[in-house]
Amino acid sequence: MPDPSAPEFDFCRTMTDEDDEAVRGFLERLSAKWPLAVMQILAEEGKPLRFSRLAERVGPISQKVLTQNLRMLERDGFIIRTLYPQVPPRVEYEITQLGMDFLLKISPIWHWLIDRLPQFEANREQADRKAAQAINPAA
Amino acid sequence: MPDPSAPEFDFCRTMTDEDDEAVRGFLERLSAKWPLAVMQILAEEGKPLRFSRLAERVGPISQKVLTQNLRMLERDGFIIRTLYPQVPPRVEYEITQLGMDFLLKISPIWHWLIDRLPQFEANREQADRKAAQAINPAA
Repeated sequence: MPDPSAPEFDFCRTMTDEDDEAVRGFLERLSAKWPLAVMQILAEEGKPLRFSRLAERVGPISQKVLTQNLRMLERDGFIIRTLYPQVPPRVEYEITQLGMDFLLKISPIWHWLIDRLPQFEANREQADRKAAQAINPAA
Repeated sequence: MPDPSAPEFDFCRTMTDEDDEAVRGFLERLSAKWPLAVMQILAEEGKPLRFSRLAERVGPISQKVLTQNLRMLERDGFIIRTLYPQVPPRVEYEITQLGMDFLLKISPIWHWLIDRLPQFEANREQADRKAAQAINPAA
């Protein structure tokens, strides 16, 4: 077992309730359906991508929802939006260093969870069987 | 910039939509208000803890909500519940190796986000100022 008094385990002590809410808010928002996909595509691209090309690559998402996701990511500083005032106007999106750092930090827990999905499924089945037996011991 | 073709950036390619949903479900559930706090306390304790002692340590949580959180964590295999059939019955909770591993994996992104909360706040203020100026260039 790792040492539970190590600083890695200190999730709460150094933060206010407000900070705690803010961090959980980020995890929730960024692990939603599209933000990670958008950032991943921009990271792979490695250079600015036009809205229409980005929309093609992200997949089945409405323009409205993609725009909402891009605004949120831009507002936090994970991506940069550049408007070229030509006719028709050209809008390009690029990932920032902050966005790249975020992807690198979320990646280990993401892959750890993927690798363990079958184990979680097995754990849940076992727990449900145990619960059923507790209700009906003859089963 | 890190190499965007590195396997760390591959969030989607190797998984089905169902796996993708499952991983996001985990991140959302486990970054909710109580699961991390419960696991952190059990990790610090390093040995089984009675329900009443755990409730004291977690803080302002109803018995019902704490019980719901404990059941969820037990079902996934992050904690173990042991019932001692004495009078009155004694129920103890202990973190598993899987739970400890999860805390160690979520810790880097958690602390990375905490450390950058002021930067995110500044990014959002700047974005909102820029948006206001685009609407009213004289401002």
